[in-house]
Amino acid sequence: MSVLVVGSVALDTIRTPMGRRRDVLGGSAVYFSVSASNFCRVNLVAVVGDDFPSRHVDFLRRKGVDVKGLVTASGKTFRWEGEYDWNFSDPRTISTKLNVFSGFDPDIPREYRNSKYLFLANIDPHIQERVLRQMTKPKLVACDTMNYWIENKRPELVRLLKKVDILLLNESEIRGLTGQTNLIKAAKAVLRFGPGKVIVKKGEHGSLLFSGDHIFSAPAYLMESIIDPTGAGDTFAGGVIGYLATCRRQTHADLRKAIVYGSVMATFAVEDFSLRRLGSVGRDDILRRYRELKRLTYF
Amino acid sequence: MSVLVVGSVALDTIRTPMGRRRDVLGGSAVYFSVSASNFCRVNLVAVVGDDFPSRHVDFLRRKGVDVKGLVTASGKTFRWEGEYDWNFSDPRTISTKLNVFSGFDPDIPREYRNSKYLFLANIDPHIQERVLRQMTKPKLVACDTMNYWIENKRPELVRLLKKVDILLLNESEIRGLTGQTNLIKAAKAVLRFGPGKVIVKKGEHGSLLFSGDHIFSAPAYLMESIIDPTGAGDTFAGGVIGYLATCRRQTHADLRKAIVYGSVMATFAVEDFSLRRLGSVGRDDILRRYRELKRLTYF
Repeated sequence: MSVLVVGSVALDTIRTPMGRRRDVLGGSAVYFSVSASNFCRVNLVAVVGDDFPSRHVDFLRRKGVDVKGLVTASGKTFRWEGEYDWNFSDPRTISTKLNVFSGFDPDIPREYRNSKYLFLANIDPHIQERVLRQMTKPKLVACDTMNYWIENKRPELVRLLKKVDILLLNESEIRGLTGQTNLIKAAKAVLRFGPGKVIVKKGEHGSLLFSGDHIFSAPAYLMESIIDPTGAGDTFAGGVIGYLATCRRQTHADLRKAIVYGSVMATFAVEDFSLRRLGSVGRDDILRRYRELKRLTYF
Repeated sequence: MSVLVVGSVALDTIRTPMGRRRDVLGGSAVYFSVSASNFCRVNLVAVVGDDFPSRHVDFLRRKGVDVKGLVTASGKTFRWEGEYDWNFSDPRTISTKLNVFSGFDPDIPREYRNSKYLFLANIDPHIQERVLRQMTKPKLVACDTMNYWIENKRPELVRLLKKVDILLLNESEIRGLTGQTNLIKAAKAVLRFGPGKVIVKKGEHGSLLFSGDHIFSAPAYLMESIIDPTGAGDTFAGGVIGYLATCRRQTHADLRKAIVYGSVMATFAVEDFSLRRLGSVGRDDILRRYRELKRLTYF
């Protein structure tokens, strides 16, 4: 089974208390793809500029990511520059240069349109909806968003949510979207918008799944050292959706495992800059950390 | 088996977004005692003024708390007034009137001195040490503290920790005590001070146990409505130590269960002002919520 992801491919410049890196590989679709590629085949739809290093494309191909949908446009690749302080939570954005990403309105390759699993990474909900309309009959549509869209494209986002199965967002986003401080109340409000499931990402505090009356509280793996949290949320989503794509049905037990796999993948993302650690992870690393999380939380 | 607790008995005036209450029963030793009384016998050592309503003493007796060590001094009972905002974390203290508590230097009743389980609630570490010196041979000494003592009585606290088995503290306290931001590093530093175990209380995000290389990440129960978080930490400690007092040994499995029982008890504390809900909890309520926490986190 394969997953289609539509999102950004970027060159990131990042400062954290642990160091700085310039123009390294990043972007929501990249973190998602590489994470999910550990579970299933991934088809990537995104745009880069003609300055995008070919070694990054080779890297994605080596990870088993199908890059037929990676369009090269004339101009520069999307660039983001940000800085994290010691608490490693929300970064301070120093600059965002959309470049070729500003006109991103993807034409989904014909052979991708009947994908059963679709991840709409964090882009304009209007574009997310245009992507969704090109799909034949996806079995599972998951979607990410951010406070910018919640504030500025709320009607479009709410309309999109009617057609989404799983919404992933963080605590501040779900509070912004629903106006509810309490996470249970906020999650119930999201479910009324349409998604059958909502996953609240709480960073170092784990995550919560709400599906009807069913709630799962997933632990976080404890990290002794974090180098760069960029991409952790997309990597998490890659683990969740990548694992779900391997399940015949999506039972509550499957969903719980999927979320734990997502958490495991995110731990690799933050252990080094860009995809240095995430890109070299093997099946044994993943299983070992999955079992550690089980040991950490069993009672 | 019985637990001895030494701490404060107070009359609290509390404002939360859910309402306000004036001069209601509170204090670390009260929350701890009532919580632990669901698991084992509790001996309470504390001081109140001659204005302390006798109905509160009757209430403690009815909960099976031995109040032989509750001294009535001439003067007024310790009063605390505080306010919580919507995030229900650290309250803003409006006033603290120590009153009779200012000279608290307890003489432990002879029949309590051979207690096997001792909880030193949050008081001056110098007094905590004086209590400890009066004990014959406790099997397990647990202790709480706060940022005020960490900042102002650090040498006394560090000296005390050499003789403590379990230190309970919250995230900001463990960071203040150790100067480490990362919780694993902070916990390792605490263990080097002496305690065999440290429990980090993370409020709505659960708690962490560190014991040598053993780590347990305990989930939080999800609350749809919080009325008053006062006493949650002491209630948690009451569940932990109360349950441990029923265990022949303190295996890692016992410790994990104890922490989950602590989390369960804390959920009752925050469901109403003062001890209104906590004081009326029965065995079935506790077991039901314990099983809910298991269902919430199993994978």
